[in-house]
Amino acid sequence: MQVSRGLEDVIIKTTSLTFIDGEKGILRYRGYDINDLMNASYEEVIYLMLYGDLPSRGELEEVKSIINESYDVPESVINVIFSLGRSCDPIGMMETAFGALASVYNPAWDKERDKETALKIIAKASTVTCNVMRAKEGLKPKVPEPSESYAKSFLRSSLDKEPDELEVKAMDNSLVLYTDHEVPASTTAGLVTASTLSDMYSCVTAALAALKGPLHGGAAEGAFNQFVDIGSPEKVEEWFSRKMEEKKRIMGFGHRVYKTYDPRAKIFKRLAESLSSRKPEAKTYFKIASKLDEVGEKHLSEKKLFPNTDFYSGILFYSMGFPVYMFTPIFALSRTLGWTSHFIEYVEEQHRLIRPRAAYVGAEKREFVPLEKRS
Amino acid sequence: MQVSRGLEDVIIKTTSLTFIDGEKGILRYRGYDINDLMNASYEEVIYLMLYGDLPSRGELEEVKSIINESYDVPESVINVIFSLGRSCDPIGMMETAFGALASVYNPAWDKERDKETALKIIAKASTVTCNVMRAKEGLKPKVPEPSESYAKSFLRSSLDKEPDELEVKAMDNSLVLYTDHEVPASTTAGLVTASTLSDMYSCVTAALAALKGPLHGGAAEGAFNQFVDIGSPEKVEEWFSRKMEEKKRIMGFGHRVYKTYDPRAKIFKRLAESLSSRKPEAKTYFKIASKLDEVGEKHLSEKKLFPNTDFYSGILFYSMGFPVYMFTPIFALSRTLGWTSHFIEYVEEQHRLIRPRAAYVGAEKREFVPLEKRS
Repeated sequence: MQVSRGLEDVIIKTTSLTFIDGEKGILRYRGYDINDLMNASYEEVIYLMLYGDLPSRGELEEVKSIINESYDVPESVINVIFSLGRSCDPIGMMETAFGALASVYNPAWDKERDKETALKIIAKASTVTCNVMRAKEGLKPKVPEPSESYAKSFLRSSLDKEPDELEVKAMDNSLVLYTDHEVPASTTAGLVTASTLSDMYSCVTAALAALKGPLHGGAAEGAFNQFVDIGSPEKVEEWFSRKMEEKKRIMGFGHRVYKTYDPRAKIFKRLAESLSSRKPEAKTYFKIASKLDEVGEKHLSEKKLFPNTDFYSGILFYSMGFPVYMFTPIFALSRTLGWTSHFIEYVEEQHRLIRPRAAYVGAEKREFVPLEKRS
Repeated sequence: MQVSRGLEDVIIKTTSLTFIDGEKGILRYRGYDINDLMNASYEEVIYLMLYGDLPSRGELEEVKSIINESYDVPESVINVIFSLGRSCDPIGMMETAFGALASVYNPAWDKERDKETALKIIAKASTVTCNVMRAKEGLKPKVPEPSESYAKSFLRSSLDKEPDELEVKAMDNSLVLYTDHEVPASTTAGLVTASTLSDMYSCVTAALAALKGPLHGGAAEGAFNQFVDIGSPEKVEEWFSRKMEEKKRIMGFGHRVYKTYDPRAKIFKRLAESLSSRKPEAKTYFKIASKLDEVGEKHLSEKKLFPNTDFYSGILFYSMGFPVYMFTPIFALSRTLGWTSHFIEYVEEQHRLIRPRAAYVGAEKREFVPLEKRS
């Protein structure tokens, strides 16, 4: 009996959602190149992932209208988020909120309604994410207001200001960039949950629980903290050499799948460059990151370590005004689309209860000795 | 590329915890037969699962004292449970509470402290479970009071009465019976979560999310509702024949692993018989269940369908005074020990990030058409 450690090379499902070529640095959703999808809004990508094709104008309006009608959550869910202290872990708070949504809504699986359930979940994820930030910042609760753009509604309600066009476009693109990446641990935890026909909110709860682990979420935060730690572009080379000597990992470099420059990293770099130019510290962090990217290319590319999607994204979110602890929740917000798309694909097209085995390597039968006779 | 549907026959880990022989109907924890373990208290089994051997008197007292000191939870966690409405799903409420615990505590993995973290989680699971019931019943919150027995503290705080010796013993045995069953979906969802090094509370949250599905938890409730539906022992045969004609499944019969009488079902039958004799309706349900067991044996045993662990357990919990919706939460309470034991075994002895693959079967590269040009 052979243990499939980490389920590496085990194929848990088929998918028509996301294609990755790690050697060539290609990422496609439903056949569309990630670069091309920078010309689509997040709502177009929502339709694409859930329904299989890019929407017509009418289909797009329908998706937007369902989302705009679904931002509201029961008061109890808002209470649950605000019951937790300001020092609480933000992904833990999202888990809690999704557990509460699962307690209240608890929808059964139903082919006629699953996609609409996913749209509602995506809308409510925005409400949850922005209120996690508001609770941690000591602000009052706020439900995102309907607008012509999911990204815009989220930015408005999180940051309490009117975002400009560039910020909305950058948030829109970020949501698309983080939408899906096949079946990492978070998606897998959610799939196992979906396989018991647990409600879709609980599947997201399980995915969040897995994303919370430092080996999964948190990389954007880790990469950004390095730039803060380095402090100025002039110090990059020395900092890098020291890390190499100490055999430390550089955060934001390397990926289990990509053996070349992550296509998302190139786009995030462009976005971060344009938005960081508005804020002096952000500009410095961008310069540090570019320098580190350059130095890394000289020394790490032979080990096939290249900047990944989390390398520049933190600078972008920071430039918009988000605190560092929000980088992973924004990732989660965006990934909710990928998660629910995989859950629906699995349950509707290839459902089977997920029940692996464990190989017993423990004690043979032992004689029971009652407590009073134990030494 | 072959898809491992449902991960059937995929071995996700090794284990020294639970041995099952489905052909012979054998279940052992760490080498001890489940029948022998009816002579051990739940606390002895807690020690056995986490530390590998049955405890000495001193070791047992230490476990009891850590548990007794750990029932308390932050006020925010109690608030979270009571924020949710009385009509909420109880397992969803447990997910929410564990999400809240994960938000507040968020302990890092640490070999020196993981077992104590598990003991704390087991204590707090009792607090969560009893308060889910109290919230749903419209009662005030209550934290289990320390006592010489985990089962007794749980019964007292849930049912607001002093349980007698027989009730305590039956609850104690039930907790042991539901402690572990290798790697079903709930344990697997938690393992995937643990593999990202997410905190142990989040791992339990993910396991609860999976347990919530009707294909996993809820079988005891389903079996019990059949007995209510049948109404009297005289009607069993007719009811059974009708179900057979309609090709309906009989709840509480059959198990993916056992091809003979589930050893736990025999013990639950004995326990249910003795406690149900005190309550007229419970006595009737027991008679109905025994009759159904007998009729089932004649007609279903050739298909290798036998009563499983959930067949009689509901009658036992009902006899103690628990509402039907509490059957699955009690299962979850007890299984928290099995879950945390597997998580610790995985992270400490065989850790690897769980990241399977999906086989892409979707569209080839497609040309992007901007919205305004789409038909």
